[in-house]
Amino acid sequence: MPHTPSPGTLFVVATPIGNLEDITLRAIRVLREVGLVAAEDTRRTGRLLNHLGISTRTVSLHEHNEHDRALPLVERLLAGESIAVVTDAGTPLLSDPGRLLTAAAAARGIRVEPIPGPSAVLTALAGAGLEWSQFAFLGFTPTKQNARRAFYKQADALGLPFVVFEAPHRLRASLDDAALVLRPRPLVVCRELTKIYEEFVRTTTSQAVELFRVREVIGEFTLVFGAAEPVEDTREPHSDASIWAEVGRLTAAGRTRREAIAELARQEGRSSKDIYAAAERGKTAATPESSQA
Amino acid sequence: MPHTPSPGTLFVVATPIGNLEDITLRAIRVLREVGLVAAEDTRRTGRLLNHLGISTRTVSLHEHNEHDRALPLVERLLAGESIAVVTDAGTPLLSDPGRLLTAAAAARGIRVEPIPGPSAVLTALAGAGLEWSQFAFLGFTPTKQNARRAFYKQADALGLPFVVFEAPHRLRASLDDAALVLRPRPLVVCRELTKIYEEFVRTTTSQAVELFRVREVIGEFTLVFGAAEPVEDTREPHSDASIWAEVGRLTAAGRTRREAIAELARQEGRSSKDIYAAAERGKTAATPESSQA
Repeated sequence: MPHTPSPGTLFVVATPIGNLEDITLRAIRVLREVGLVAAEDTRRTGRLLNHLGISTRTVSLHEHNEHDRALPLVERLLAGESIAVVTDAGTPLLSDPGRLLTAAAAARGIRVEPIPGPSAVLTALAGAGLEWSQFAFLGFTPTKQNARRAFYKQADALGLPFVVFEAPHRLRASLDDAALVLRPRPLVVCRELTKIYEEFVRTTTSQAVELFRVREVIGEFTLVFGAAEPVEDTREPHSDASIWAEVGRLTAAGRTRREAIAELARQEGRSSKDIYAAAERGKTAATPESSQA
Repeated sequence: MPHTPSPGTLFVVATPIGNLEDITLRAIRVLREVGLVAAEDTRRTGRLLNHLGISTRTVSLHEHNEHDRALPLVERLLAGESIAVVTDAGTPLLSDPGRLLTAAAAARGIRVEPIPGPSAVLTALAGAGLEWSQFAFLGFTPTKQNARRAFYKQADALGLPFVVFEAPHRLRASLDDAALVLRPRPLVVCRELTKIYEEFVRTTTSQAVELFRVREVIGEFTLVFGAAEPVEDTREPHSDASIWAEVGRLTAAGRTRREAIAELARQEGRSSKDIYAAAERGKTAATPESSQA
């Protein structure tokens, strides 16, 4: 009976989105140890490997050759070789090359192991500092005006904060359409994430059009749209939790706790004692379950 | 005139979600160089810093003290000290502690710089290997059955693939509710992401209930629900692009290109020549714009 080797592992490796220091210790080890790196752009990945002092061989795997390359790569995995798949930037998924290879490998029972790391979506959300517990990622906006307006209309209907990618030469047109179609909401325009000229412009859908009429528009953009209204308020208006949160916001802005409570009492038309009690209940009710997004 | 120091930077640093090797070179440098690390759980972060040989001082910043701690930390930033904020696991955002500090710092003009790294959401998506270009993240499901069913009903209405976190002792009940409320769809149950017993169970909403009736349910779960129907099909049924994609899927599964085209011709009720031409057009039309999620 012929010897059957145990299959290799297909590692789905996240790579930097702009700053070459944004790579994990495990990603470096895996890229060094695998037999082959399947890369969207071998020159770009070659520069990263070179920077890291890694000499693993690369093979190109992009949308125009993935259909032909996936099967031979699956055969090599079945023969025992481990392979890493990377894209130009960030966490490989969505419409990126590699998805077909991942699906084919999983279907053959090959172990698929994601190596977490940078992603433009979560970097934008972490830097934006808006408030939410849920969000949607909607990819690039459509290039044509009609389609883009329909896109923003659908995005508005989701009722969630959402993140999109936008090309620099379409940014102004896209902000115009967003202002026209979306209910007014906070907007953080993220430029050149993790790069030298990284910037977070904290604005609103109403103000952004004017703001970017006079700003230079260069670089890669990720737009973070907040909720149309605070999500917690639509669910339970003036709840204990929202009063507790509001006390926190006011004290962080420089008020004493006493001043914050007095101010909220005026706004809510309730007594300070009442607001104090609500804030204490809101604090106690805060769930101890922490998310690990 | 007194000397006014330039303010420090607030770094929002992603940390491992289970495997201590999942930390970037930049995160390690920043955690070493800042004056202070504000941590959700100082013991847990202390273990990470210790593992990395970093002796930076930590201060606790969690939901029960963030209201009191945010202002003094903002003062220290204004005085020129740089501070890193980390949570127990992953990328700080959403309902995690640190959001209030981030918002307060940004409001005072302090530079907020996200340091990208692991996130359970994108790790689950990268490992799941389902197809999509958009998704929603909806956090933990509600703990009560009625609320959870309403939650899944809303999730279904989004029309997007979506990711949720689930506690092990509620997994079976949650899968029951999902099967009851959601339109049938692919489901990947991710367990213990990046840890030793990491597992991706590729199933469907209909089959998962039965499957997990007999499986041990231990660990942390992230559920990745696919789209109810393939997104591209609802937009442009039998488009050139979807035929090209289908040829790819079939060849990756072991068919020759000729067999794949013949099979699709039968399914579509079209000639092989017609299908071949459609696949070629679909290949050419593929957008060169790559996402960097």
